[in-house]
Amino acid sequence: MAERTITVGSTLEALLAEKKYSTIRDILITMKPFDIAAEFDDMEDDRLPILFRLLPKELAAETFVEMDPEAQELLIRGFSDSELREVLDELYVDDAVDIVEEMPANVVRRILSQADQEMRKNINEILRYPENSAGSIMTTEYVSLRPGMSVGDAIMRIRRTGVDKETIYTCYVTSGRTLLGLVTVKDLLLAQDDDTTIDQIMESNVISVNTHTDQEEVALTFSKYDFLALPVVDAENRMVGIVTFDDAMDVMEDEATEDMEIMGGMTPSDKTYLRSSVGDLFKHRIPWLMLLMVSATFTGMIITGFESALAAQVVLTAFIPMLMDSGGNSGSQSSVTIIRALSLGELELSDLPRVIWKEIRTAVLCGVSLAAACFAKIMLVDRLLMGNTEVTATVALVVCMTLALTILVAKFVGCTLPMFAKKVGFDPAVMASPFITTIVDALSLLVYFAIANMLLL
Amino acid sequence: MAERTITVGSTLEALLAEKKYSTIRDILITMKPFDIAAEFDDMEDDRLPILFRLLPKELAAETFVEMDPEAQELLIRGFSDSELREVLDELYVDDAVDIVEEMPANVVRRILSQADQEMRKNINEILRYPENSAGSIMTTEYVSLRPGMSVGDAIMRIRRTGVDKETIYTCYVTSGRTLLGLVTVKDLLLAQDDDTTIDQIMESNVISVNTHTDQEEVALTFSKYDFLALPVVDAENRMVGIVTFDDAMDVMEDEATEDMEIMGGMTPSDKTYLRSSVGDLFKHRIPWLMLLMVSATFTGMIITGFESALAAQVVLTAFIPMLMDSGGNSGSQSSVTIIRALSLGELELSDLPRVIWKEIRTAVLCGVSLAAACFAKIMLVDRLLMGNTEVTATVALVVCMTLALTILVAKFVGCTLPMFAKKVGFDPAVMASPFITTIVDALSLLVYFAIANMLLL
Repeated sequence: MAERTITVGSTLEALLAEKKYSTIRDILITMKPFDIAAEFDDMEDDRLPILFRLLPKELAAETFVEMDPEAQELLIRGFSDSELREVLDELYVDDAVDIVEEMPANVVRRILSQADQEMRKNINEILRYPENSAGSIMTTEYVSLRPGMSVGDAIMRIRRTGVDKETIYTCYVTSGRTLLGLVTVKDLLLAQDDDTTIDQIMESNVISVNTHTDQEEVALTFSKYDFLALPVVDAENRMVGIVTFDDAMDVMEDEATEDMEIMGGMTPSDKTYLRSSVGDLFKHRIPWLMLLMVSATFTGMIITGFESALAAQVVLTAFIPMLMDSGGNSGSQSSVTIIRALSLGELELSDLPRVIWKEIRTAVLCGVSLAAACFAKIMLVDRLLMGNTEVTATVALVVCMTLALTILVAKFVGCTLPMFAKKVGFDPAVMASPFITTIVDALSLLVYFAIANMLLL
Repeated sequence: MAERTITVGSTLEALLAEKKYSTIRDILITMKPFDIAAEFDDMEDDRLPILFRLLPKELAAETFVEMDPEAQELLIRGFSDSELREVLDELYVDDAVDIVEEMPANVVRRILSQADQEMRKNINEILRYPENSAGSIMTTEYVSLRPGMSVGDAIMRIRRTGVDKETIYTCYVTSGRTLLGLVTVKDLLLAQDDDTTIDQIMESNVISVNTHTDQEEVALTFSKYDFLALPVVDAENRMVGIVTFDDAMDVMEDEATEDMEIMGGMTPSDKTYLRSSVGDLFKHRIPWLMLLMVSATFTGMIITGFESALAAQVVLTAFIPMLMDSGGNSGSQSSVTIIRALSLGELELSDLPRVIWKEIRTAVLCGVSLAAACFAKIMLVDRLLMGNTEVTATVALVVCMTLALTILVAKFVGCTLPMFAKKVGFDPAVMASPFITTIVDALSLLVYFAIANMLLL
C-alpha cells in the first residue's frame, strides 16, 4: 500500500532536466496517444512545447487530439505556421472541428488560414450544423465506391485513397451523391471473384441518419445495430459524411453523464470534475438548490396551516422526516427507472398506461409491506423499547396509512412526470429526484395532516 | 398526431392469417435483425415458430441472438435437432454463451449436445470465467497470424478463414499462443509491398486485458483508445480471445444503467423495464425503502429529544422539510458527480484531498448565497407577505445558519463517502442519495436544534 511508485511523468521530468531528449522520445513512442496526452496535461506549461516537438509527426497529431483544450491552445500559440500546418495535415476533419470549437476566435482564424483548402471547406461545413446533431459529430472523410466497379477495382481504390480516411472498413456506394448501398471490406475480401461488381454484393437496405438527427439517437442506432460507421445524409438524401463508432461511444458516455447530472439536480457540464473550477461547480449547482429552497415555501405553509394540530400532538412531528424521505426515495426509484428506459429507447410514450398500471401495483406491494413493517417497528421500538407513551396505536396507524398512501402517490408522480416531460419536449431527466421530492413532500404532508385530523383530533 | 400508423407487426399478422408466406419473407429480408427480433418478441407464441422458419439461415441466426430469452427458449424447445444445429452453426461463440447463460439446465444440455465439438469446447471455456469478467464477454474466434508471414499470405489467410470470425479487421500476431503484436487490415491493404513480413509492420506495443479484468475496466479501455477489438490473455500471458467494440458498448450502457439504479436506491436489474414483472420491481425496490424507513428512527429520535423546544417554538417545524431537502439535494449533487467521475476513471482515490478542498469551497459559496437568499425570502414572504409574526429575524437567522452549515456537511459527506466506499471495495454508487440523505438529515436536525437552543431558548 505504502510502496512508492515511480510515475512516467516524474521520469520524463527528470530526463528533461538532464536534456536526455532521445531517451524521452524512445519512452514516448512506446506509449498510446491517450496516455501521452494525460502526462502532457499535467506538465508545467513551459515544458510542453519541448516534449511535444519530440514526438514523431503522426503520433504528435494523435496525441494533440487527446489533450486538454487549454494545452492545445498553448501549443498552437507557440507553433510556427509550418508546425501548425503539419499537425493539421495529420488530423481527421471531425477531430479538427472538435478543436476549433474549443478555441478563441483569433486561434480559430489562424487554424483556418493554415488548413488546406479541402480541410477548411469541410471544417466550415461541419461547423454549420447545430450542436449535438449528427452533422456536428460526423466526418466527411469516407470511402465511396461506384456500383459498377469490380471488387478488384474497389480494393485498388481503397489501397490508393484509404490512408486519409477515418475508417476504410465500411465503404459507401454512391451515384452522383445519392447513397445506394454499402459494402464492407470483409465482403470485398471474402468475395469469390475479383470481377464481381459492387452492386451485386452491396447491402442496399442501408440505415442512415439525417444531418439534424440528435446525437443521442445516433448513439442508440449504433448500440442497436452494432455498426462500425453510420452514413449521414442531407435533406435531399445526398450522402455528406459518416459517424464512426468511437464518436458514438463518446456520445453515449456523455449523454449518460448528462442524465445523471440532471437527475442529481445539476445543470450538465462539459468539463470533467478535476478540470471544473469552484466557480463552474457553483454555477451548475446553485440553480436547483435555490429552486428547491423557494419551492419548500409550500411545505412550510402546509405545516404552518396545521400548527395547532402539531402543537397538540407534537409526536406527529417526529415522523415527518421518515415520511418525506420514504416518499422522495420511492418517487425517485420510479423516475430514475423510467428516465433511463426512455433514453435507451426501451419505452415509448404510448406505453404510459402499461407503465402506470405496473407502477401502481408495485406501489401497493411496496406500500403495504412498508406500512406493516413500520407499524411493527413503531409499536416495538418507539413505544415498547424507548417507552414513548405518546406513540399510541392510533398514532402508528396514522403514520402507516400516510406512508402507504405516500408511496402510491410518489410512484405515480415519479412515473408520469418524466413521460409528460418527454411528451412536451423537455428532457425527462429534469423530472428526477429534486423536482419530484418537492411535489411528493407537499402531497405527503397534506395526506398526513388530513388523516391525523380524522383519527386523532 | 392522431394519424393512424400501420405497423409492420400488424401487417405481418394480417399476411400470416392469409398464409402469404413468400410476401412475409420478402418483407422480413428488408429488415435488420434487431428490428425483426423486436417484432417477433411481441408476437403470439404460436406464430413465432412459423415466422422464424421463413427467415434465411444467416438472418435467422442473427435475429435469434437479438430476441428475448423467453422467445429463444420457446423456439429452441420447438426446434428439431437439425434446426437447432443449423442455428448454432451460424452463431458466434460469445452470442452462444449469452444464450446458454439465460436457459434452464435441460435446454443448455440440448444446446451443448447439438453444438459441434469446437463450439462446445469454446462455450465451456468461456462459461468458466467469473460473471462480468473480460473472459465471460470475450469471443474465442479471432484471426491469428504468424510473425514471419508475408502481407500477401496474411491477406490470403484472412480470405480463407475470415468468414467465421466476428471481426477480421484487427488480426493478432502470435507465436505459440503468446501475443506478439497486432496488424489491422488497413495496415495490410496499405502496405507498399505484398512481400513485407508481418513482423515488420505489426504494432508490437499491444494493450491487452486479463481474463479476470472487470468488464467495466474493459469498457473504459475501449473508450480511451478507440479500439475495434481488445485481446484477452490468461495468467500465463497466452492469448485466449478478444472482446469486440459492440460488446464493450453494451457493457458501457449496462454499467451506466446499473449506476443510475443504485443511485436511485434500487438493487440493479438485468431486465428492461417492460420485461420486469411487478414482483421483480418490488424485489429490487423494497430493500432500500425498508432500510430508509428503519434508519429514519434516528431522525425521529432527534426530534423527540427536542420535543419540548419544538412545542415552545412550533414555527421551527415549518422549516424542517426545506432544511432536509436542501441538505439531501446538495449532498447528492456532490455524490453523483464524484461517483460518475470515479466510474469514468477521471478520479483516483489519491485525488481525495483535492476533491475535499474543491467541495468545501463550492459548499461555502453555495451555502452563503443560499442562506442570504433564504433570509430575504423568509423576511419578505413568510413574515411580511403572509404576516406570520412568529417568524422573527432570530428565527430566520437560526434557519439560515443551519442551512449554510447543512450544505457544508452535505457536500463533505457527499464527496467523501463514495471515495471511501471505493477504497474499501464497495460500489461507490451505493453511497448516493438514499444513504447520504439519511446521514445528512440526522446531522442537519442536530445542527438546527443546537443553534436554536443557543439563540432562541
